[in-house]
This record gives sequence, C-alpha cells and structure tokens, in this order.
Amino acid sequence: MSDKVLIVDDLATNRIVLKVKLSAAHYEVVQATSASEALAIAASTRPDLILASAHLSGMAAADFVAGLRKIKPLSTTPIILLQTHSCAHDRHAALRAGADDILTKPVQEAVLLARLRNLLRQHHNSYDLTRQPGGGHFFGFAEAQREFQIPGRIAIVARSKPEALALQGMMSHSSQHQFSAYGTDQAMPIVSTQQIPDVYLLRFGQADAEEGLRLLAELKAAQLTHSCPVIALLDKNTSSLAVTLLDMGANDVIIGLADREELALRMANQLRHKRNSEQMRAQLLSGLQAAVVDPLTGAYNRRYALPFLKQLIEDTHQSEESFAVMVADLDFFKQVNDRFGHAAGDRVLCAVTTQLRAHLREGDMLARIGGEEFLIITPGTNRFRAQQTADRLCQMIHQTPIAVPGTSAPLHVTISIGVTMARHNSGCEAHTVDLLLDQADRALYLAKAQGRNKVTFCARSAA
Amino acid sequence: MSDKVLIVDDLATNRIVLKVKLSAAHYEVVQATSASEALAIAASTRPDLILASAHLSGMAAADFVAGLRKIKPLSTTPIILLQTHSCAHDRHAALRAGADDILTKPVQEAVLLARLRNLLRQHHNSYDLTRQPGGGHFFGFAEAQREFQIPGRIAIVARSKPEALALQGMMSHSSQHQFSAYGTDQAMPIVSTQQIPDVYLLRFGQADAEEGLRLLAELKAAQLTHSCPVIALLDKNTSSLAVTLLDMGANDVIIGLADREELALRMANQLRHKRNSEQMRAQLLSGLQAAVVDPLTGAYNRRYALPFLKQLIEDTHQSEESFAVMVADLDFFKQVNDRFGHAAGDRVLCAVTTQLRAHLREGDMLARIGGEEFLIITPGTNRFRAQQTADRLCQMIHQTPIAVPGTSAPLHVTISIGVTMARHNSGCEAHTVDLLLDQADRALYLAKAQGRNKVTFCARSAA
Repeated sequence: MSDKVLIVDDLATNRIVLKVKLSAAHYEVVQATSASEALAIAASTRPDLILASAHLSGMAAADFVAGLRKIKPLSTTPIILLQTHSCAHDRHAALRAGADDILTKPVQEAVLLARLRNLLRQHHNSYDLTRQPGGGHFFGFAEAQREFQIPGRIAIVARSKPEALALQGMMSHSSQHQFSAYGTDQAMPIVSTQQIPDVYLLRFGQADAEEGLRLLAELKAAQLTHSCPVIALLDKNTSSLAVTLLDMGANDVIIGLADREELALRMANQLRHKRNSEQMRAQLLSGLQAAVVDPLTGAYNRRYALPFLKQLIEDTHQSEESFAVMVADLDFFKQVNDRFGHAAGDRVLCAVTTQLRAHLREGDMLARIGGEEFLIITPGTNRFRAQQTADRLCQMIHQTPIAVPGTSAPLHVTISIGVTMARHNSGCEAHTVDLLLDQADRALYLAKAQGRNKVTFCARSAA
Repeated sequence: MSDKVLIVDDLATNRIVLKVKLSAAHYEVVQATSASEALAIAASTRPDLILASAHLSGMAAADFVAGLRKIKPLSTTPIILLQTHSCAHDRHAALRAGADDILTKPVQEAVLLARLRNLLRQHHNSYDLTRQPGGGHFFGFAEAQREFQIPGRIAIVARSKPEALALQGMMSHSSQHQFSAYGTDQAMPIVSTQQIPDVYLLRFGQADAEEGLRLLAELKAAQLTHSCPVIALLDKNTSSLAVTLLDMGANDVIIGLADREELALRMANQLRHKRNSEQMRAQLLSGLQAAVVDPLTGAYNRRYALPFLKQLIEDTHQSEESFAVMVADLDFFKQVNDRFGHAAGDRVLCAVTTQLRAHLREGDMLARIGGEEFLIITPGTNRFRAQQTADRLCQMIHQTPIAVPGTSAPLHVTISIGVTMARHNSGCEAHTVDLLLDQADRALYLAKAQGRNKVTFCARSAA
C-alpha cells in the first residue's frame, strides 16, 4: 500500500520471490544485493521497512543491523531478518543490535505480511506526530535511545496462575525487572491503578484463543494500559491466530516457546519503545508549555492569552457568568530602564508578576502581553468584585518596594489598570477579543491620563 | 479494565443487566436513573464512556446527547445509545447531536463489549498526548469542532467496482463530498499519493471476510492512510466478524445496510474526527515551533540551540567531520538602546539576524542566546572555512547600515565573534556543550579586548 520496503539478499532468487509477494501486496520495493549496498541504498532512499537475509556475505547480521541503526533517519525504521535455519546465537545478536524481528524460514506468507503491516503500523503511529514534511523529525524527537537500563514492571498472563509463575521463574532468573503473574482462569483484573505494568506478556494457544484476543483488545482499549506494549507468546502451529493478533496491534508475537535470552531481549526492546514514547511525550508537553510562557517572568504570553480569552467569550455564550478583562501597565517604566539599566527593569517586571499572581485566584489568567503590559482575565466575577480586585492589585504594587541591582534603595513602582466587563446577554455589541482588549486599552488610557496608579472602567462595558 | 462507564436508564432491570455485563468485563460502573441525573453525574464523575437508553423519560435522546456534549470535559467522550426498536428519525437525531453509535436491541454481548473497547481505544489514543494529569487538556487542544463543513474525499471499496459505484450513487445523491469507487476484485492499489482519501468505506461480508480484514489492516498500517478513518459496512449476521473488525481498529462498523441519511451522518462524524486530529497536530507543531524560536528576531532560542549542539557533539563521535561554534555579540549595543530607545534596539537585532542568516548555509544554526548575543553553529566545516565564514559575517554587519526609528541617519553597528572548533579525535579533552560555549566565550572576550569588530579563535580548540 505504497510503503517502501527494502529487500536485501545476496541471492537473486530469494529477492525475486520476496519482490513478487510484496508487490502483490502493493508495496513499493527497492532491492540491494549486499550489506554494503543496502546501507548505501537505505541511507539514500529511506525505506519504511527493511527485510533482509540474516546470512549476507561479508557482514554479520548483527553488524548490518547496527550499521543501519547508525543512519540517523533509520534509527527507528522496522527491520526484519530472515534466517534459513534457526541459530540462537545469531538471533540474540540481531535482536540486541536493534532488529525488530528475526523469522526462520519457511515463513508463511500471511504471517510475514501481517508482521510487515504490524511493524509499519506501530512505526507510523508512534512517530507520526513529530514527523516533518521533508522527512526527519522535529528537533531531535523520536531519536532511538538504545541505552535505557531502567528495570520495568512486567505482567505475565497465562491460562493459569501456576503456568504464569513458571514463566516468571524462567524469566526472573537473571533479570532486573519486577514481575507479576496472573491466570486468566481467575476472575481478577490484571491492572491496578497503583502498579500499571510497563509490558504485558500474554501466553495462550488455539484452545483459549478467544480469551487471549479479548484480553489483548481490552489492554489496548483501557486508558491505563493502552500504551503498554503487549507481547503474545503463542503455542506452535497458531499462525492464523498470530496474523489476527498482529493486525489487532500486539506489539510482538512469538510462535512456539522462545528461549530465555530471546524473550529477555524482546522484552527489553518493548520496554525501550515504551520509555521512548514516554520521553517523547514529556518533551512535547514541556515544549508546549514553553511555547505559552514568557521566559522572563513566567507569566503566560500573548499566544496563550488571546485563545484563552476567545474560549472564555465562547463559553460565556452558554452561561450566565460575566468576567473581567484588565490591562495593567507599569507607570513610568522607561525611567527604570534608563536610570538603573535593563537588569533592574527585568527585576521589576518579575517582581510585579509575582505580586500580581499572588493576589489573583486560581482560575484567573495572568499574561505579559507587551514590554511592561499585562493582561489579567478573571472569570466568574461581577463589576463590584472586579473593582475590588483591580484596586487591590494597584495598592499592592504601590505599597511593595522592589529591590533591584544597581541601587541600594528599593524601587517604588505603580501600575495603572483599565478594566472592561464581558457578560452574555449584555445588550451591547457582541464581544470579540479585539473589542474587549480595545475597551480595556481605552480605560487604561483614561487611568494614565487621570494621573496613573489607578483603576478605570470602560464606560461602555456591561455592568 | 478499570475504565469508568456511566450507565443511564430509567428502568432498574436494564441497569442491572448492563452493570453485571460490564462489571464482569472489569469496567468500573456508575449509574444514573434519569437524563438530568446523568448530566449531573457525568459532569462530576467524568466517565470514560457513556452507555444510555435512547428512551429516557422527560428528555429526547438527541437533547440528552447535546447536553452531555456541552459539558466541556465530555465533548469527545464516547456515547453509545441503545434503542429498543429501530427508529430512523431518532437515530439520525442522536448521531447528529454527537452520539458515537446507536445500537438496536437485542445487541449481542460480544458486539457491545467490542464496541466499547473500540470507542475507548480510539478515544484514549487520539487525545492521550494532550491530556493533562488532572484531567482536562492542554490549553484548548482536543476541543470538539462540530462545525466542520469541509467536503471530504471518500473512497468506497466493495467486492466489485459496480457494487462500489452503486453505493457511491446512493451516497453522492445529496452530498458535497468527493467520491471514488474501487472493487477488491481489481488488482489496483486503492490509494495514490496525489489523492489520499479522508475516509474509507469498506463494504464486505462473511464470504470475503479475509479480504476485508486484510484491507483494513493494510490501510491502518500504511503511512499514507493509517490516520484515515475506516467505516466497515457489513452484511447482516456477521457479528463475530464485526467484533474482529472493531478490535482491529475499524473506526465504525455498521451491520446490515444503513439508510442513506445514517451513512451520511456516520461519514460526517468520521470526517470530523479526522479534521479534529489534523487540527490538533497542526496546533501541536506550531506550538513546538514557537517554543524554539525567539519571538523578536525569529532566530532559534537557547532551548533549541543547546540540544542541537549536544546532538552534533554526539553525531561527531561517529564521523570524521569537524564543526565550528561561534558566539557573536553586538558591539556597544547598550548605546543603541540608550540613545535611540528600545524600538531602535529591537530593529537592530532583527536586521542583524537577517544579515547573519543570509550569509549562513542551509545546515547552519543561528540562535539568539542572550540580549545581543548570538550562537552560530556550522557543521561540516574546517578551521580555514570557519575563519572565512566568521570574517565575512563581521564584514557584512560592518558594511550594512541599518535604518531605525528615532533617527534619520541609518545606524552602523559591528559585531565581535569568538570561535572554537570541535572535531572527533581531536586529542583534546572531550567536547561538551559547556566546554565549547566556554571556549567560544573566551575567544569572544579576546575579540572585545582587542578592539571589537573582529574574529578571534579559541587557542585550545582543535585545528
């Protein structure tokens, strides 16, 4: 379906067989005949997935995978290796180097295609948000962090608790992780708010397929667990079940029991994916936070304040509440900068922000919208209380001297405040952001004209 | 699985039956006995999903849904209604008001639970990123926009092209959307890069279930289509197929042919979800962009520059390339502010940014890291070329007068630049962000001490 797959194999016949299969499934196929050629082609064509023989001449599979991972845009691209005969040592090395899966031939076509879809779906979904139009990612997001060594919480779920415990015994032997074991024959929820697992390991077979499928679907649906990777451990000869699980979004599916080391490696891979996306989410949120805050004072900025006001206007259409819009401006601020320098001016702005915030309520919004100009929005207030609030702000600033660098005596500054009230059904013209800011600005102008250090209301604003 | 479901029904027996089913599936259940009680409980308990009778006494189902949608934190919470007898008029009204599904009793338990899982999964996934710890969303993200009227591109896929065309004929009758029809019997890809559909409508039944399931999985996996909603239109008596589709991530599943109006409404719902997430993504990206850019000059800020440098240091460990770190500082900038005012100072900063950027290459990074201080990083350069670049920047600023407000004669300003080189295997102590910035700062200090308007290299930096 137009995703681009790079096939890597020394043998032409193998490449042709794969190309026919993938083309029939509408993939765009590019080919490489050796590991070194593949590294060059992968770097230039940036495939969506790489499907390579585990037996390339001249380079060990693990080294090939490591080489691909070093190419920046491919650090998270799905890589599947195909072994002609199962070799545990090579499997482990490839998984350790960052391969997503290593399958042993013969691989059923349906399973192979399902694995491709599954890895592509995971890949496209997890990195979609930060992908930039020209390829590449938004400043360093989505970089693979291969070094996470944090122990994880692993939940093992099997047909019965003893079976889950047996699996846990095998796993926990040389592991730093914290395990918990559940049997699906017990009527108990396998997640609690206190201890949400990082990774789920579901062990089941054809006989209890329905139970297993439902469990996977439940884990992928619930708020607490939907971002937890799920590894399904299936009995042998369950390939059609594997296809369904892969298409439902299981993060890894192992048919037949894997050895302890392979299981540990696959678990570590999923744990790393989870940590990566948690880190990406934290980066995104802190990035967004930074986008709406004035770095000097920590007050919100214009970018936050104007949509906030717009939203409040819309909300007020559906309620009886009125709110106040205040524009507060430092009086004679230029003199502070001129006489005591920029550092002093900055100090004053920070101190005033702190004081204003201390005297506002929790739902109120304080933003710095110009050099020495602040916007204050107090929802759910009437004119009488807005007057009280604004007067109090004025007084507090007036009464609180500010220590600044460059002079031993603390500075006394004042603010002037222009206020306008907004209310639904006010009978006036419809409120807009511009209108309200304009009204507050005019009121501020009056306060300045009347001598500063005072509060003036917009005459036309709703009472 | 610990998600909270609000059950709303006048009849105690109905509530009890549902409660037993949902509790067995490990949902936390809250109950309401009337529409008005439900509105109050929903507002205070904020359920993850609402499952309500479509026949509440005292309030039409559509009004009830509209009432729920008006409660801010519930604007996107999944709502399922249960009808005791199918009534097209009520169905349409409820869907129009914002219900996600309206099912007619008897509903098979497996289908009901699959629909719950399906809606919860969609809900938790789409809004996860912007959800804040205390509930609520990051400043206005994820608000439902119920007003999108933009025509969409709808792809209809059926067993054969004539069947798809017949469906298209029925749909396009009174629709503003743009349709395309495909038959799965044709060997052609149903997506092209030029015209990616907004919504897919897949029509199939038990006989071609495998084909349909694979198609859904392919659409959900491919980069071009994985975020396109898919509506499955199934033949009657296909409830186990419906369960599988829902658990695979179909966005809506309709069993038995829906009437034209219902299909149009469900399509509009999916289109709205799609537009919403596109909008959310755009907001996020522009928020992130704003987080890394200095609003005055448009250069990057410190928040971007330091991780950029850190990443470059790491990348250089794996390559033979060297890069230059330059700190450029405007000479005597305080005088500009003092003599001509802030507006003039700001104008100078912007003009200098523009000139610096014009003389840097595409991969170079320019950030404003202090009042009049810029950081310039030029990857893939050697000392000779770095010297050329820095000299040229110095000269250009010196030679280009800047028109500013407050004075008729344009200003002449100069910059001083301190440079350090970073290279892998340089034999020096390991590079760190702090070390490189410190070296460049010392070099800058020398340039200032030696008369300004000049370039100085760090003596200890790698040649």
